[in-house]
Amino acid sequence: MLIVHHLGVSQSDKVVWLCEELGLDYELKFYARDSVTRLAPAEYKALHPAGTAPTIQDGDVTLAESAAVFEYILGKYGAGRLTVAPDAPNYADYLYWFHYAAGTVQPAMLVEIIIAMLGVDRAQVAALTARGDTAWASLEERLGKVPYLAGEQFTAADMMNFFTLTTGRLFVPKDLSSFPNIRAYIQRVLDTTKARAALSKADPGLEIPFA
Amino acid sequence: MLIVHHLGVSQSDKVVWLCEELGLDYELKFYARDSVTRLAPAEYKALHPAGTAPTIQDGDVTLAESAAVFEYILGKYGAGRLTVAPDAPNYADYLYWFHYAAGTVQPAMLVEIIIAMLGVDRAQVAALTARGDTAWASLEERLGKVPYLAGEQFTAADMMNFFTLTTGRLFVPKDLSSFPNIRAYIQRVLDTTKARAALSKADPGLEIPFA
Repeated sequence: MLIVHHLGVSQSDKVVWLCEELGLDYELKFYARDSVTRLAPAEYKALHPAGTAPTIQDGDVTLAESAAVFEYILGKYGAGRLTVAPDAPNYADYLYWFHYAAGTVQPAMLVEIIIAMLGVDRAQVAALTARGDTAWASLEERLGKVPYLAGEQFTAADMMNFFTLTTGRLFVPKDLSSFPNIRAYIQRVLDTTKARAALSKADPGLEIPFA
Repeated sequence: MLIVHHLGVSQSDKVVWLCEELGLDYELKFYARDSVTRLAPAEYKALHPAGTAPTIQDGDVTLAESAAVFEYILGKYGAGRLTVAPDAPNYADYLYWFHYAAGTVQPAMLVEIIIAMLGVDRAQVAALTARGDTAWASLEERLGKVPYLAGEQFTAADMMNFFTLTTGRLFVPKDLSSFPNIRAYIQRVLDTTKARAALSKADPGLEIPFA
């Protein structure tokens, strides 16, 4: 059976959600972060050389990297659901927004985390943060035109980015007051998918910042 | 016809290589970086809201994000070449290493760039750089076991990572003397693929650091 090794408040939140959304029969193994360091426990790091969440097991396969885990589960068990096929008109939109999380938004969040950790004056490093500002503006603009990132339908492209909009803000506070489209989108996803149910399994009791 | 808007010495190097490797009929439109700022010219940034390289055009479609561009070209024009199918035993290996570039190595390089830009003492921020050190060690270990990242065959997973090993080192110097497997791998890829021919089209005259 597919085993999701889930580290609380981490990118493996997405994978729990994917399994719920696809209605898969899977085993959820929960690992808590160290209460002082907030790091993953040693037994989690030992699962895969990457030592990062998510990590899944499927028979002999142990796999990390959230985009790889998504493509693996969708390719093996998705039967085309939550994806867009190469011959569809919005194939490129789907791919762009699927990869937007790891390619654009998460590096921008990493920059913000480092700047905060090092106590650097944000105004002095405006060039470093400019790409992140563009990234949020692009999301806001896109969500003013379409209900979901790939177009009319909810897809895995939404699931890849939702983490950065919700749980991700526990790591890097982000004020969404000037992003009405993003706020409405978060509510739309919560209303139309298993996001809330999955988060209550993945991070029970935790207050996730929503819109 | 497929148009590759190629910014010199950028991630669009990979896309030129992909088109060469697949033998596609494509148009290469070359854009030079500003000779002082090293940034992309305004006409490049205007191609797509992301303003980043690579950007491709295919009929009505304009697409950015290198992983999205790869999946688009492979999905539309690859006919299964350079990829691994879900029913193959090394499907997970392929996905893991395909996504390793954007998910692990490039964020680690970004951390190094920021540390260098801000003049931070690297020893004082060892926790920030530890994940990057693990990433290079994992590549070295993997390439001691298999000739190409997904296993016996050269795939798009190699193409996603080759940039970080070669052109990427123009942005963040990285001494490969303690990574004999990575050095041998770079030579193997240069010997067995169109990498060198593609780089000579993408960055004519430029001295790329190889092994």
